[in-house]
Amino acid sequence: MSASSRILNLAVIPGDGIGQEVVAEGLKVLSAVLPQDVKLETEEFDFGARRYHATGETLTDADLDALKRHDAILLGAIGDPSVPSGVLERGFLLKLRFAFDHHVNLRPSKLLPGVATPLAGQPEIDFVVVREGTEGPYTGNGGTIRKGTPHEVATEVSVNTAFGVERVVRDAFARAQARPRKKLTLVHKNNVLTFAGHLWTDVFHKVAAEFPEVATDYIHVDAATIYLVTDPARFDVIVTDNLFGDIITDLAAAVSGGIGVAASGNINPSGEFPSMFEPVHGSAPDIAGQGKADPSATVLSVALLLRHLGHESEAARIEEAVAADLAERVGKPARSTSEIGDALAVRVAG
Amino acid sequence: MSASSRILNLAVIPGDGIGQEVVAEGLKVLSAVLPQDVKLETEEFDFGARRYHATGETLTDADLDALKRHDAILLGAIGDPSVPSGVLERGFLLKLRFAFDHHVNLRPSKLLPGVATPLAGQPEIDFVVVREGTEGPYTGNGGTIRKGTPHEVATEVSVNTAFGVERVVRDAFARAQARPRKKLTLVHKNNVLTFAGHLWTDVFHKVAAEFPEVATDYIHVDAATIYLVTDPARFDVIVTDNLFGDIITDLAAAVSGGIGVAASGNINPSGEFPSMFEPVHGSAPDIAGQGKADPSATVLSVALLLRHLGHESEAARIEEAVAADLAERVGKPARSTSEIGDALAVRVAG
Ligand SMILES: CC(C)[C@H](C(=O)O)[C@@H](O)C(=O)O
Ligand SMILES: CC(C)[C@H](C(=O)O)[C@@H](O)C(=O)O
Repeated sequence: MSASSRILNLAVIPGDGIGQEVVAEGLKVLSAVLPQDVKLETEEFDFGARRYHATGETLTDADLDALKRHDAILLGAIGDPSVPSGVLERGFLLKLRFAFDHHVNLRPSKLLPGVATPLAGQPEIDFVVVREGTEGPYTGNGGTIRKGTPHEVATEVSVNTAFGVERVVRDAFARAQARPRKKLTLVHKNNVLTFAGHLWTDVFHKVAAEFPEVATDYIHVDAATIYLVTDPARFDVIVTDNLFGDIITDLAAAVSGGIGVAASGNINPSGEFPSMFEPVHGSAPDIAGQGKADPSATVLSVALLLRHLGHESEAARIEEAVAADLAERVGKPARSTSEIGDALAVRVAG
Repeated sequence: MSASSRILNLAVIPGDGIGQEVVAEGLKVLSAVLPQDVKLETEEFDFGARRYHATGETLTDADLDALKRHDAILLGAIGDPSVPSGVLERGFLLKLRFAFDHHVNLRPSKLLPGVATPLAGQPEIDFVVVREGTEGPYTGNGGTIRKGTPHEVATEVSVNTAFGVERVVRDAFARAQARPRKKLTLVHKNNVLTFAGHLWTDVFHKVAAEFPEVATDYIHVDAATIYLVTDPARFDVIVTDNLFGDIITDLAAAVSGGIGVAASGNINPSGEFPSMFEPVHGSAPDIAGQGKADPSATVLSVALLLRHLGHESEAARIEEAVAADLAERVGKPARSTSEIGDALAVRVAG
């Protein structure tokens, strides 16, 4: 959908555990923020553990065709202890990222006023991680020989292409260019992973020449984890590989308020396939169905979704509403998932 | 050397930057703590940036032969911005780990009283990471085709063997068994890296059957970074792959007092080759030669070295001395590298 068309045609995947609850609140806030003349049409999909147990399916070609017909996808969470590790991850989450070429995995980290952080001294945190989403060690390349024997060998192949690295690095430079500080940090491990590291570093320098206003630097992924806890203010935009991005964005979420407020977008910038937006947190089966989950991460993912579709002012309104709601929580009793959603819906409408 | 032999024959590699200064203090404290009847013999090696620039060599076969003749190796730091990234890492540090089969990379994290942490609320931190040191993505397998063209493909292959995983997992179980809490956590990413992940997980469960007293659990590496900042007390012993270990031990060092106090051992438990002990920090060229570096991490690495060689009481005396010294620093003016070394030498002798 462009900002001017008048239907937002959304695929909704509540998924497992708390996914159901938080997506309901995300939709509530989305309905409240949309201009009167934009019609929200949603189609719900039943992917996740239940469908897998019932049919053995995780994501079929027909499913992909059906999803493809939407402007964007909103996902709650996928995953349940009853399903062996890897089945839904590889069979659904990663399959979708690869099928729809979601090569920009966008994960903003902003420590909002009033929000608790495990770090002492309430540091300033406001950065964005651009994580590559379709390459690296996530491709599923590799294999096992002599499985289950004392001579087993298991390999994992990280695949990195100039094409894949350049497009995500360019996207990150453009995002850095559009921010006040205009700073981009490449995070890799180019002193050990020298083949992939040289490719990333060379491409980074090449693309940097097109963005003379953007200040650049490089740090190893191990050192990046140190800075994330000792000096997170040093970061503005980070671009990194799929696996390093996975690791540092969980840490980034932890220091900037926790996974209760961490949003993400799996973006196909060309628009050839719909992009998918989801909270960074998982399905949290231990608290599912109890109204305890914080829907803020999902609501902030809705903001990313709206921004991606060109609805900048609605996205900003959601972000302001969440910030105000979080600031007001301090010292108050905990509210339920739907109470938080109601409060946010009122704020964005008002 | 066994505890009963009367010569400690040490290879010393001061290396680059602050390596020189901190190793001098490590040796000072070592001399002070050794029983009168143990003779310390040291041979110094000039590896690092200077030698590389002068001769193009990083670590030759003759060097390895010479190192092999020692009971253990003490290293300061290797690395300098004048050498291209990867040359000394692959050509010296990793070459030595692989040549001497240092498959147990031991990295304790303990937050000592009085030591600053970036975490709020001074949490309890006392765990050990057992990082695999000779496999995973560190093997140098992989390559590049069409280098420098828009069609470049660069791969990195993580190689994992039942042999390599089992020996390090068994070592970690034995270490957990010997600690009061007897808890071992496997950290991996078995939901995405399913080939290597299954191998690690299967071996972990198999070896667990031999250690019924050890409580076990599993967490993904991304979640581990969250726990390291929100609930580090949950960890007792962690066993993990080479790359994940690299990343989480830097974070572990940061939260437990910083790299000024983080020690490590690159251990060959069979004793076939000498083990190597070094601070986790690098050569810090920005402060080299100024007497500003904290030698505590090197001194604590000397303690690990002594423990490895069977000198448990001397190792404990060093650790107590460092703890006491750190506790006394609070509110005092900063001391120089050698002043700290002097103070520690007095303490361990007393
Ligand atoms: C569930 C898993 C496949 C996924 C990933 O590793 O990318 C998750 O950790 C994430 O960060 O979105
Ligand atoms: C310098 C580098 C090769 C090394 C590693 O990655 O192992 C370092 O980061 C470490 O942790 O000892």
